[in-house]
Amino acid sequence: MKKGCPYGTHRVISPKGVLPQPADVIDNTMEIYDNEVLIDVQTLNVDSASFTQIEEQAKGDLDEIKKIMKGIVAKAGKHKNPVTGSGGMLIGTVKEVGPAYKGDLKAGDKIATLVSLSLTPLVIDEIFEIRPDIDQVDIKGQAILFQSGIYAKIPEDMPEGLALSALDVAGAPAQVAKLVKPGDTVLVIGGGGKSGMLCLYEAKKRAGVTGKVICMGHSEKSTNRARNLGFADEYFAASATDAVDTYNKIMELTDGQLCDIVINCVNIENTEMASILACKDGGTVYFFSMATSFTKAALGAEGVGKDVNMIVGNGYTKGHADITLQLLRESDKLREVFTELYS
Amino acid sequence: MKKGCPYGTHRVISPKGVLPQPADVIDNTMEIYDNEVLIDVQTLNVDSASFTQIEEQAKGDLDEIKKIMKGIVAKAGKHKNPVTGSGGMLIGTVKEVGPAYKGDLKAGDKIATLVSLSLTPLVIDEIFEIRPDIDQVDIKGQAILFQSGIYAKIPEDMPEGLALSALDVAGAPAQVAKLVKPGDTVLVIGGGGKSGMLCLYEAKKRAGVTGKVICMGHSEKSTNRARNLGFADEYFAASATDAVDTYNKIMELTDGQLCDIVINCVNIENTEMASILACKDGGTVYFFSMATSFTKAALGAEGVGKDVNMIVGNGYTKGHADITLQLLRESDKLREVFTELYS
Repeated sequence: MKKGCPYGTHRVISPKGVLPQPADVIDNTMEIYDNEVLIDVQTLNVDSASFTQIEEQAKGDLDEIKKIMKGIVAKAGKHKNPVTGSGGMLIGTVKEVGPAYKGDLKAGDKIATLVSLSLTPLVIDEIFEIRPDIDQVDIKGQAILFQSGIYAKIPEDMPEGLALSALDVAGAPAQVAKLVKPGDTVLVIGGGGKSGMLCLYEAKKRAGVTGKVICMGHSEKSTNRARNLGFADEYFAASATDAVDTYNKIMELTDGQLCDIVINCVNIENTEMASILACKDGGTVYFFSMATSFTKAALGAEGVGKDVNMIVGNGYTKGHADITLQLLRESDKLREVFTELYS
Repeated sequence: MKKGCPYGTHRVISPKGVLPQPADVIDNTMEIYDNEVLIDVQTLNVDSASFTQIEEQAKGDLDEIKKIMKGIVAKAGKHKNPVTGSGGMLIGTVKEVGPAYKGDLKAGDKIATLVSLSLTPLVIDEIFEIRPDIDQVDIKGQAILFQSGIYAKIPEDMPEGLALSALDVAGAPAQVAKLVKPGDTVLVIGGGGKSGMLCLYEAKKRAGVTGKVICMGHSEKSTNRARNLGFADEYFAASATDAVDTYNKIMELTDGQLCDIVINCVNIENTEMASILACKDGGTVYFFSMATSFTKAALGAEGVGKDVNMIVGNGYTKGHADITLQLLRESDKLREVFTELYS
């Protein structure tokens, strides 16, 4: 059995020397290296941007969607959408574990891979069913998990769909758990969204009765959704693209003290300055939004002389899947809203 | 006297509701609000990208450069290059301080503003001299510093040009001073560059004899420059766009332990993965490079399952100018190389 690199570089065909994610073509031979895991795939959870693009290209025709998806994998050895560059995740059952693989997986374990499909060696034998409303595709096929690939075991005490909907954004609340301290004033921008609601719950848990959690929603609808959950101390709806307006509102809600921690969960552009201005000097701005611009954040903070610590949201942190699934067990309200909206 | 907003929003003409930096047109009337500082400008230190663009547009003709620069300011009320979007900084003497301004400035102080020209109200009466080799332009004119605008007093114990060359990158070593602890293993990517050399010096000072500082240079030339300074423990030249190669080299130099802190100072694209792979789990990657892509960093770390703390380089942190100027006083070697190369 051949020895593999933890990052899967042994499977890169072209271009040479890059990692599997940026690679154009990877080797999807379903014979494992010594540190790999072979998975019988049940469902592909295609990235939302990717699925929408494929659906549009196929003009909504299901057979055409199947053809496009099979074509992507046949060409690249993985399901990396050539237009959007994005992947998704998969659900399946462990078939075989390499002898040198370090981890707690064994044959028969049901898992969700939390690394992107854009770097996961995949073979699609057959596509059974497409569920366009939730971007899911049931297939017969196999995939490879590298040593460095993160995953979560599907819990037995909750419906699969519910677990998956939360695992999709597992990084955010787990990072909040590390950041927020008792007594902190925390602003969650986009608090009525999927990751935002998890962050609100975790932030209030950590900040405690001496802390203050402020929920800023993008619309009245999402703000009311968060208000009904009742995790935060203050709620308001506003556009985070209006930095000055956001700043004035936060000044008012914090008696001019501003926030210790600002969590940006809103996937729209130009919200960097609102996040920075809402944060006090010495505080932390955590950008979980993929619409964040590095230069707008860096130059923006310098331009207004703000000494804030700005963190690039890492979708992974140790134990993030366990931390996030636990929130659904702790809070009936979260479980209900996630069941209703996302599963 | 009218009351001003600390961020200068009172000077924004269009579009309404934005901050002065993204604004198209700001009010450059040289009559101060109560919390502003009026400056008699001596020299504009135009951002390198901006100056290069203007020089090319003018085909190197000095009179044409003057015309373009005056045109930008006449139209926008500030020197924000409409093509590059960037500004620069200025040197001048404080003429008047508003009664509500909080800070230690008084009339007669010679300062360099460290906020961008892209947000600084400016009037150019006359352009005296252009020094294309160092992007500097001597003018007769005036500018406004907002309450939030950062600046440094020009020190009297070193040549002006030397101080300015270091102030230009003051954020980087000041952030290193906050991050690096005794015993840390630190990688500086781009250690032979301007900010890289300052970071190497500060990193070794903080990591101490029990720590290890590794300098990675982009070329043999820049690596040798750093080697001659002698601040680091290890030196090598390689391309940080090759993540796998960088990872293997760092594994070798750290006995498989990888680094506690990785400082990225190299202004080229696609160096995120090399920075992430070189860092150990639980470590910190500090991106000072403006070529950093937020999504490449965020998705890259998740893709390889790295639990690293990734920080957006903030050009400002409290005391950054003092910290950086002090390095030039402490180290004769730094002072020599900065005098030779940048002043």
